[in-house]
Amino acid sequence: MQEFKPTEHQHVRYNPLKDEWVLVSPHRCLRPWSGQTEAEPEDQPPDPNNPLLPGATRSSGQRNPLYDSTYVFPNDFPALLERVPEPPPSENPLFRSSAAKGTCRVMCFHPDSTMTIPLMSVDEIMAVINEWTNQLQELGRRYTWVQIFENKGAIMGCSNPHPHCQIWASSYLPNEPRVKERTQKEYYIKFKRPMLGDYMKQELVKKERIVVQNAEWVGVVPYWAIWPYETMLLPINGQPQRLTDLNDAQKMALADIMKKLCTKYDNLFKCSFPYSMGFHGAPTGPSKAPGDSPHWLLHAIYLPPLLRSATVKKFMVGYEMLAQSQRDLTPEQAAQKLRECEDVHYKNKK
Amino acid sequence: MQEFKPTEHQHVRYNPLKDEWVLVSPHRCLRPWSGQTEAEPEDQPPDPNNPLLPGATRSSGQRNPLYDSTYVFPNDFPALLERVPEPPPSENPLFRSSAAKGTCRVMCFHPDSTMTIPLMSVDEIMAVINEWTNQLQELGRRYTWVQIFENKGAIMGCSNPHPHCQIWASSYLPNEPRVKERTQKEYYIKFKRPMLGDYMKQELVKKERIVVQNAEWVGVVPYWAIWPYETMLLPINGQPQRLTDLNDAQKMALADIMKKLCTKYDNLFKCSFPYSMGFHGAPTGPSKAPGDSPHWLLHAIYLPPLLRSATVKKFMVGYEMLAQSQRDLTPEQAAQKLRECEDVHYKNKK
Ligand SMILES: O=P(O)(O)O[C@H]1O[C@H](CO)[C@@H](O)[C@H](O)[C@H]1O
Ligand SMILES: O=P(O)(O)O[C@H]1O[C@H](CO)[C@@H](O)[C@H](O)[C@H]1O
Repeated sequence: MQEFKPTEHQHVRYNPLKDEWVLVSPHRCLRPWSGQTEAEPEDQPPDPNNPLLPGATRSSGQRNPLYDSTYVFPNDFPALLERVPEPPPSENPLFRSSAAKGTCRVMCFHPDSTMTIPLMSVDEIMAVINEWTNQLQELGRRYTWVQIFENKGAIMGCSNPHPHCQIWASSYLPNEPRVKERTQKEYYIKFKRPMLGDYMKQELVKKERIVVQNAEWVGVVPYWAIWPYETMLLPINGQPQRLTDLNDAQKMALADIMKKLCTKYDNLFKCSFPYSMGFHGAPTGPSKAPGDSPHWLLHAIYLPPLLRSATVKKFMVGYEMLAQSQRDLTPEQAAQKLRECEDVHYKNKK
Repeated sequence: MQEFKPTEHQHVRYNPLKDEWVLVSPHRCLRPWSGQTEAEPEDQPPDPNNPLLPGATRSSGQRNPLYDSTYVFPNDFPALLERVPEPPPSENPLFRSSAAKGTCRVMCFHPDSTMTIPLMSVDEIMAVINEWTNQLQELGRRYTWVQIFENKGAIMGCSNPHPHCQIWASSYLPNEPRVKERTQKEYYIKFKRPMLGDYMKQELVKKERIVVQNAEWVGVVPYWAIWPYETMLLPINGQPQRLTDLNDAQKMALADIMKKLCTKYDNLFKCSFPYSMGFHGAPTGPSKAPGDSPHWLLHAIYLPPLLRSATVKKFMVGYEMLAQSQRDLTPEQAAQKLRECEDVHYKNKK
């Protein structure tokens, strides 16, 4: 039989962070597509009634200040409230419910609705990172988990193109970080080193999955990525466990690499590339303190839905929902395609 | 403070099958929606070149027989192939890959492209179930896992409205059943009874999450459902561990309850209700035999994406991808809405 070629032959790969496998079927890219296409992500005309604009009145009746950088306010339709009655204790292990307290905030990145991260300056992105750090500092004192995330594009359920993210803080540790807490701890106990530190070092040597890099950060398509162009940003120096651990050089370099990565994303299919992104770091809460989680390494995660073009996404449906994620190109192929994208945003080219 | 009301107050619920939690935020249903809407699932005009039609020539050059019931053929773009070179052994725990062998088949339910399960007769659905059983019997001899699943609707990545499902058989046990194997085994060791048998009995008593029921099956919105109108079909009598364990009465009643459930689904938003559905039963393979998995109970799972109407889906995005699933109405509210839908299909009413 032929020699194994990862770019041609199906195999499964293990994700040690999530303790899950992904089926990689690169030969499937040959499949023609005649199914659903998405609306082209387009530049929406400015909406004068946009509730995220400086000076706008929101549905709560509150008026935004004339902000000129970032602006944070409470989500007017929060999934998590701070004060709610608690469910009674569960009597049956098959019908268990538990209290959930929390708070949801919205954070605008910029006063201009036509802006996006790759079009903003590094200083403007730096202001976003500083505000994230403030938010984590404040909410992390009270809450076990503070999830900062950006849903970008209508395809990701984002109803407003104004550049913004959300921050949901909760009294409980959600599923995804709960699993990462366990797997990283197990690795640390076994090897006495943080899993993602070891992983980052290997990726710097192997190079084949690197998309972007600067003095402080590296962006890779993880070896175990499930979304076609999924990426992860990892810090190279020291071991920041949370966003609040970053020094100024790391923050400035994070702004730089976010801009670089998102520019490549936009250039890939010449569109404002949709994704959900967010940060995972060590859990927070009243009992936590800097440096207390040596098994953790802070990282950013980008999960973009597109597969073939600006209008054809990867459907994570039947097999993926019921059995296991499946991908149609290898992470190495995805990394190469992104790496080869230009560093100048297509909108800034004349 | 007020008394706790599950229909008003946020809480988290535990899914003992998946060992995961879901955030239930019913107060969030009040949120207005101005984001992306989907194309109305509509009756597509018959395509004379439809490769799934009896007598059609497929892209492989193969010609379909003039079938008049079900018809199974190999997927022309399979994600899993039977014979492929295997990856070399992994040297690093962070870069593990492993061999994956398998086969992918397509199964047409009916010769008529305008048919769907709720519009088919119980006898016609019975033919589908019999063929599923044959397929599981054959493929289960060689493969560890045989995933039968239907992606229905363009929104679920289904590119052809002709009634059909897929069958992907693999040499590995995929993530989802691997977790269910573990959790059900743990429960069985602790309580000496199958988890889902206990669960089914409780649901028959509590009644509040039942959508449909007949002498052999009950359909519920699980206590821990993540999709707004997710349901599960559970057998009431005996303990079938796999589809191949069903007797004729159970198969006929399965055909009946599938038709009833899908009729209610279609009537909910007066559209051909999209979903991914499939079966989970005990793992298969050469070392397996009937009755060898007393911790398992066969069940069907329906995962429909719609939330508010035929065109507004639930976006499982940022928070859901990075932290934890969140739902906007309680499983009990969803069950009641479905239960109240008529039993006669809206297309069959004059
Ligand atoms: O039915 P198809 O075209 O093979 O493919 C569809 O179902 C598969 C299995 O759930 C998914 O991997 C694909 O993303 C989806 O488009
Ligand atoms: O941004 P919104 O409108 O609050 O909501 C969006 O993000 C939330 C968090 O990922 C999801 O639960 C919603 O389904 C999605 O539409």
